[in-house]
Amino acid sequence: MGSENLRHTHRIFVPNPLAQGETLSANPDQTHHLLHVLRLKQGDVLRLFNGRDGEYRGGVAGADKKSVEITLHEQIRPQLAEPDLWLCCAPIKKAHFDTMLEKATELGVSEIQPILTHRTQIREINADRVYSLCREASEQSERLSVPAVGNPVSLQDMIDVFPKDRALIVCAEWGEADPVHKVLLSPALQNFPKAAILTGPEGGLAAEELGLLRNTPNAFFIRLGPRILRADTAAIAALACWQAVAGDWKSVPR
Amino acid sequence: MGSENLRHTHRIFVPNPLAQGETLSANPDQTHHLLHVLRLKQGDVLRLFNGRDGEYRGGVAGADKKSVEITLHEQIRPQLAEPDLWLCCAPIKKAHFDTMLEKATELGVSEIQPILTHRTQIREINADRVYSLCREASEQSERLSVPAVGNPVSLQDMIDVFPKDRALIVCAEWGEADPVHKVLLSPALQNFPKAAILTGPEGGLAAEELGLLRNTPNAFFIRLGPRILRADTAAIAALACWQAVAGDWKSVPR
Repeated sequence: MGSENLRHTHRIFVPNPLAQGETLSANPDQTHHLLHVLRLKQGDVLRLFNGRDGEYRGGVAGADKKSVEITLHEQIRPQLAEPDLWLCCAPIKKAHFDTMLEKATELGVSEIQPILTHRTQIREINADRVYSLCREASEQSERLSVPAVGNPVSLQDMIDVFPKDRALIVCAEWGEADPVHKVLLSPALQNFPKAAILTGPEGGLAAEELGLLRNTPNAFFIRLGPRILRADTAAIAALACWQAVAGDWKSVPR
Repeated sequence: MGSENLRHTHRIFVPNPLAQGETLSANPDQTHHLLHVLRLKQGDVLRLFNGRDGEYRGGVAGADKKSVEITLHEQIRPQLAEPDLWLCCAPIKKAHFDTMLEKATELGVSEIQPILTHRTQIREINADRVYSLCREASEQSERLSVPAVGNPVSLQDMIDVFPKDRALIVCAEWGEADPVHKVLLSPALQNFPKAAILTGPEGGLAAEELGLLRNTPNAFFIRLGPRILRADTAAIAALACWQAVAGDWKSVPR
């Protein structure tokens, strides 16, 4: 089977170590997914990744109603370094939060940190659902990892432990801010090897929250044009601009 | 009522001319929207725009079950020039097409042109639905216009009449293409006063279609990083990058 055809085989994330010649037994959740969603059967080819060992070609060695055995063949892609880009986002209403998570995963964020702000209406997230959504988007987008998703924390707690070597890029709807492209090209920002994009909830960040952020030494404030963007649109736009100017969109892959 | 409070009043698009002191009678569709969705009643304040005359403050002068009368007060924003940016997109499945239209509107596209390509599964679009979606996103995003939405045309027909003074920026999943930021900064692209972003359907553009496009003199091919993006993600990302580098995100609005 050539690489052109492999591109069209199913691709799944597994937590297991991957090595040529090993056999994996899918757990009950995976078995359900493999048999009833992907409809795999004995002899089918698939691709597997775990975020550590690159991507492997595998084959269904055996399948019954309760389990699937997968034999691992050769590694087809080595694990590569990925941009260290966080999305710190206030949870928003379901359909738009789903869009934000799916797109953020496709756009290559390494970690998603839900933030509880003054105007955040959605105070709890279903961690399993969020993880499934990110895993599925990772499988579809051919990335070699699944973004880590943190437990929701308050904005103050996030600021208190925010790493000194990471730029905190705040999407500001109002108040002092520079155009996104100008900020991304600035040497001050480019000094930081790592970045995080921060977006507020539907109602935006409160004045005192922007004040808090303005006192954070590694914070940068960006404006995404003259229109009002929904929170998910702002997150997606800022992530795309960062990847284009500072991330792994700067060169053309193989 | 100060401008801070006005910001939180409802904002609606109307086709009617707008001028201080005039009275508008809402048509039946608008009446339903004003009374049953926005729940406006006599004395309520709202804002109106029509894509030509800027934005006006208005007040509900009278409302019964069948009609709403709106008195136009002063103009609160003049009509301003907006970027001349098209999105030429193959229609995709419903939820993701909706996301694409909503976000494209927020991101300031002036025109959306559906394109039928070899692998386009969705061959018909509901023009009324698409228009409502774009109108609503315009109302929400504070833009002063609603994007025009064309009838679906074949890729060949689009190319045949494509204007010579508009850059055609093709999101290419494979084949020869340069990183998006490099292309956007190139003098060749910046010579064009107008631009269009082109995205394919779920299955991507076919080889012969990319070939056709490569023979189009004002076509540019961009790559949006090493991951595979959904069609809607690619459209949103490319529009955001264009606005940031070449559009109206370059300076900070009032």
